[in-house]
Amino acid sequence: MASVVAVVGATGLVGRAMLRVLERRDFPASKVLALASARSVGKKVPFKGEELTVQEATPASFEGVDVAIFSAGRGTSRELAPEAASRGAVVIDNSSAWRMDPEVPLVVPEVNPEAAKNRPKGIIANPNCSTIQMVVALKPIHDISPIRQLVISTYQAASGKGNDAVAELHAQERAIANGEEPVVKVFPTQIARNLVMDWPNGSEGYSEEELKLVNETRKILGDDTIGVSPTCVRVPIATGHSESVHVRCADPISAEQVKAALADAPGVVLQDQGYVPGTEPQPLAAAGQDPVYVGRIRDDLAEKGAVNLWIVADNLLKGAALNAVQIAEIL
Amino acid sequence: MASVVAVVGATGLVGRAMLRVLERRDFPASKVLALASARSVGKKVPFKGEELTVQEATPASFEGVDVAIFSAGRGTSRELAPEAASRGAVVIDNSSAWRMDPEVPLVVPEVNPEAAKNRPKGIIANPNCSTIQMVVALKPIHDISPIRQLVISTYQAASGKGNDAVAELHAQERAIANGEEPVVKVFPTQIARNLVMDWPNGSEGYSEEELKLVNETRKILGDDTIGVSPTCVRVPIATGHSESVHVRCADPISAEQVKAALADAPGVVLQDQGYVPGTEPQPLAAAGQDPVYVGRIRDDLAEKGAVNLWIVADNLLKGAALNAVQIAEIL
Repeated sequence: MASVVAVVGATGLVGRAMLRVLERRDFPASKVLALASARSVGKKVPFKGEELTVQEATPASFEGVDVAIFSAGRGTSRELAPEAASRGAVVIDNSSAWRMDPEVPLVVPEVNPEAAKNRPKGIIANPNCSTIQMVVALKPIHDISPIRQLVISTYQAASGKGNDAVAELHAQERAIANGEEPVVKVFPTQIARNLVMDWPNGSEGYSEEELKLVNETRKILGDDTIGVSPTCVRVPIATGHSESVHVRCADPISAEQVKAALADAPGVVLQDQGYVPGTEPQPLAAAGQDPVYVGRIRDDLAEKGAVNLWIVADNLLKGAALNAVQIAEIL
Repeated sequence: MASVVAVVGATGLVGRAMLRVLERRDFPASKVLALASARSVGKKVPFKGEELTVQEATPASFEGVDVAIFSAGRGTSRELAPEAASRGAVVIDNSSAWRMDPEVPLVVPEVNPEAAKNRPKGIIANPNCSTIQMVVALKPIHDISPIRQLVISTYQAASGKGNDAVAELHAQERAIANGEEPVVKVFPTQIARNLVMDWPNGSEGYSEEELKLVNETRKILGDDTIGVSPTCVRVPIATGHSESVHVRCADPISAEQVKAALADAPGVVLQDQGYVPGTEPQPLAAAGQDPVYVGRIRDDLAEKGAVNLWIVADNLLKGAALNAVQIAEIL
């Protein structure tokens, strides 16, 4: 049955990606509304060869809406998601506002699709970009033997921080190429030719982004005893998150077992021919692609039965827009 | 006593850095020879406001040389280091040719200076860049309680691969800024706006670079039972290696203990005020500086008594040239 879909935050990086994904996957929508904050009203966003005129997102906007996909920041989601839900829309929210609410399922369709059915608030949360791609790769391992510990180091792209962050990275790159001084406004320090940790503070010396990897992984895999040791780092790349992950399970597992499990895992492209320089998953190649690419699957040298892997995906697609639309598809 | 110093590979990135370090630290040399392969003969390299004319490195070049610092690749070191040593020079070799030879000490002056005294072949090896900065930060921890396991993910700069690699990164950046197609020659795939694993194959699915972290760490810390789980990644940065390291020791250790130990550790600048975005050690700030910067020191969330840290240094200085000159200084 074709439905009325609202995209909230339609002018943002993720919102635009959502419209492209809805179009590309031919989502059965009878109508698509592009909503955003007051300052974007009247802007045009492309959809199916035409242009949608952006309207202000207000409680009344959601009258008659079946599915509302939010990517407009935590404050907007806190305020408007319940308004949309109370008008009968199923909300799929890409912000962190509702993710850890026990009455809101946190869903990655390849991992825990059944969780989407139980949504007492009418809201389903889309996980954080770095968590989504990781759990897609880890679920088949967790099914072999329950994961006990993950040591994670991320290499995250600027687009995770939005339009302005990508613009700043590219402006800094051009400035450097022209021998000019790069301007720093969005990131705390220069991001071009540098590594920065720019997320808000969480607790116990960890950033919010790092704690999301801990808490969201546990919630999606449904196991609060999974130990997670995260370090999140921003790299001077526009699109494509990469993750180096060390995995220990309850029972010893082998790289061969993991490769076999990932070879037909949903949403995964196994890209591993042993170590051959330059053949590993790379963010530049993953940008614009739907799958989660997994490679460098190795038996740990130090710890018998542990494995190391390298996980790369487009943070705007599988890490955000695609996952949200996939949730809408399984409703 | 002032000595005659030869720098072999004087036109390379590390060779030039060695000359700058010798000059800056006012190394007591009565004479400095700039040596390189035949194709660089006659080139000029700056030293103390003058220019040294590059001469061909041959066995005879080392007559009368007291200290020969090599950074000219494994093949040259294999061939010429014994020739230099047989003529009475102490060789400090920056290649991987001799590092794992049991008769060649592998030295980081802040960590194992005493090892430099026992050099039956007349050769002292300078460790790999990524190992040097890590062991400077880890030695004070190893002294609290013996390290049992390290899970390491690196963020390594292009200059670790030499002049041509840096030139290629910058040429690709300029091409992208000008809307042109980036040319790929030195790296296996585009490095600008990308992550690449470009080191030669090692064994068991690991790169040579990753195995260096395993073997050199054990040799320098003098403990073959240390478990090392390495993942090495190249980032689109010219200078400055960064490392995310998870450390487990024989006894539980705390972030507070580690911070206290690193606060007065030789060669280390402790740069840690808890998690404050943008205040962590960064490669852009470390480039051109001598110290190893350590921050993000956190008690592990999953594993009681383990800690995580973030280690950044200039890979051409402490990671290569500075460490080599420091070895020459302790002789």
